[in-house]
Amino acid sequence: MKTFENITELRGFLKKFHKEDKTIGLVPTMGYLHEGHMSLVKTARKECDIIVASIFVNPAQFAPNEDLESYPRDLKKDLHLLEKEGCDIVFLPENNEIYNNDFETYINLEKLPKHLCGLSRPTHFRGVATVVTKLFNIIQPGKAYFGQKDYQQILVIKKLIRDLNVPVKIIMCPIVRNDDGLALSSRNMYLTKDERKDAVLLHQSLLKGVERIKAGNKEINEIIVDIKAIISQSQHAKVDYISISNGETLKEIGSIKGYKGLVLLAGAVRFGKSRLIDNELVEL
Amino acid sequence: MKTFENITELRGFLKKFHKEDKTIGLVPTMGYLHEGHMSLVKTARKECDIIVASIFVNPAQFAPNEDLESYPRDLKKDLHLLEKEGCDIVFLPENNEIYNNDFETYINLEKLPKHLCGLSRPTHFRGVATVVTKLFNIIQPGKAYFGQKDYQQILVIKKLIRDLNVPVKIIMCPIVRNDDGLALSSRNMYLTKDERKDAVLLHQSLLKGVERIKAGNKEINEIIVDIKAIISQSQHAKVDYISISNGETLKEIGSIKGYKGLVLLAGAVRFGKSRLIDNELVEL
Repeated sequence: MKTFENITELRGFLKKFHKEDKTIGLVPTMGYLHEGHMSLVKTARKECDIIVASIFVNPAQFAPNEDLESYPRDLKKDLHLLEKEGCDIVFLPENNEIYNNDFETYINLEKLPKHLCGLSRPTHFRGVATVVTKLFNIIQPGKAYFGQKDYQQILVIKKLIRDLNVPVKIIMCPIVRNDDGLALSSRNMYLTKDERKDAVLLHQSLLKGVERIKAGNKEINEIIVDIKAIISQSQHAKVDYISISNGETLKEIGSIKGYKGLVLLAGAVRFGKSRLIDNELVEL
Repeated sequence: MKTFENITELRGFLKKFHKEDKTIGLVPTMGYLHEGHMSLVKTARKECDIIVASIFVNPAQFAPNEDLESYPRDLKKDLHLLEKEGCDIVFLPENNEIYNNDFETYINLEKLPKHLCGLSRPTHFRGVATVVTKLFNIIQPGKAYFGQKDYQQILVIKKLIRDLNVPVKIIMCPIVRNDDGLALSSRNMYLTKDERKDAVLLHQSLLKGVERIKAGNKEINEIIVDIKAIISQSQHAKVDYISISNGETLKEIGSIKGYKGLVLLAGAVRFGKSRLIDNELVEL
């Protein structure tokens, strides 16, 4: 496994694979890797000739009040896990390799970020869209792998790819969970023991919502009230949002009556210092 | 010479040239071609294996009050000129091939568009940056050719390429002028006979400015007043701006005293319905 910190050197190394028309699979990460990330690498390993993972805690997707400084890092463990999974190349840029001093160019989406996480994190998806576009331009992968946990992120990236004609295929991999159902996240490490115990309520409440939708309950507002009631059993929980929306546009659904298509049940809840997100999809 | 209206078909056709590692040169235009555009094709022809010209009057770079509807078109003549110059491929998309119904993704630069033409055309460079990024992603050229007349446009494109790691080299070609010095522009066709006669004042006034800078005149404000005085000899002229700025950042220069580097003298002036632009560069 080779590691690169420098864009020019990485591009030089990748050139021969592009010439040989090898399929390059990209797994973009912010490091502190867990089984969720590893499932992306595993899927990429099956589908691509060359696997590039990137580890970059992207400042542009954090607001000043967020956890950029405290975001967990463990490069040694990350490299060990990636090597074990058969990753070929790891891209480990410093901030100034990605953002030059005069950096001023951002990718903005006008609709999708106006929902869900974008409401409390108004510059987040601009940062995601910009860094992912840069990684695509640097690495020129045929496929890129993202986890369903960040579902809105995947929609944003799919949309920018379509709108800007970026020649990359996006592969969404299922959420990987702990035995009790908590979605794996690097941010779970901030949880105290009590918060960790309560954090399962997020997934449990969403599953309850899925159950009620499948059972034919048509009143979305009632379902959301019930989901929030389950979460509020924890004294550590503070709901950012619970939303039931169109799984393609993210527009909220008022009533399931007559609705056909993909339904997204998504939530963001703070447990102590950790803001955790989770989601479930239902096809109606 | 082959023409394509469809992105997928164009990409399919270009695939073999990419595989053979041919250098593709892109000449993006809005049509109604003149010798200025042809000089771009000529230069590309010398430097590249395959020349793609695009003709697309990009709605995203026109504001509602601007001349999108009346922008001149003459496809038959354009194709004739391109074929004569040895262009290989012409991309002629309709609006809905470039902008899908739900289009929402734009490239924004935060600094360069806050000068010169960007002040009176605040969404113009967003439209330029977005469509050029799309053309680069669709065609994947090694080099792209732009005329110096749209100098700010070139800086914007060079900056977005650097910031977003787009693997394209930008080639700037000199301004092509009529015998009397008027820069060629598709918009010159809007000029009445009297306006056409007066329009040379824009270039003449900029040349006077160049002369004074080279002669060691250090007070920029005085030079600008003199340039504007020359232009106001025409009763048809209405100055949008005359600016003397740093040729890389576009920040206005107060005094040449101690200044080292590239100086841009640029102006936008309305003659009747035509908003004409021109510029000169001086290296100090």
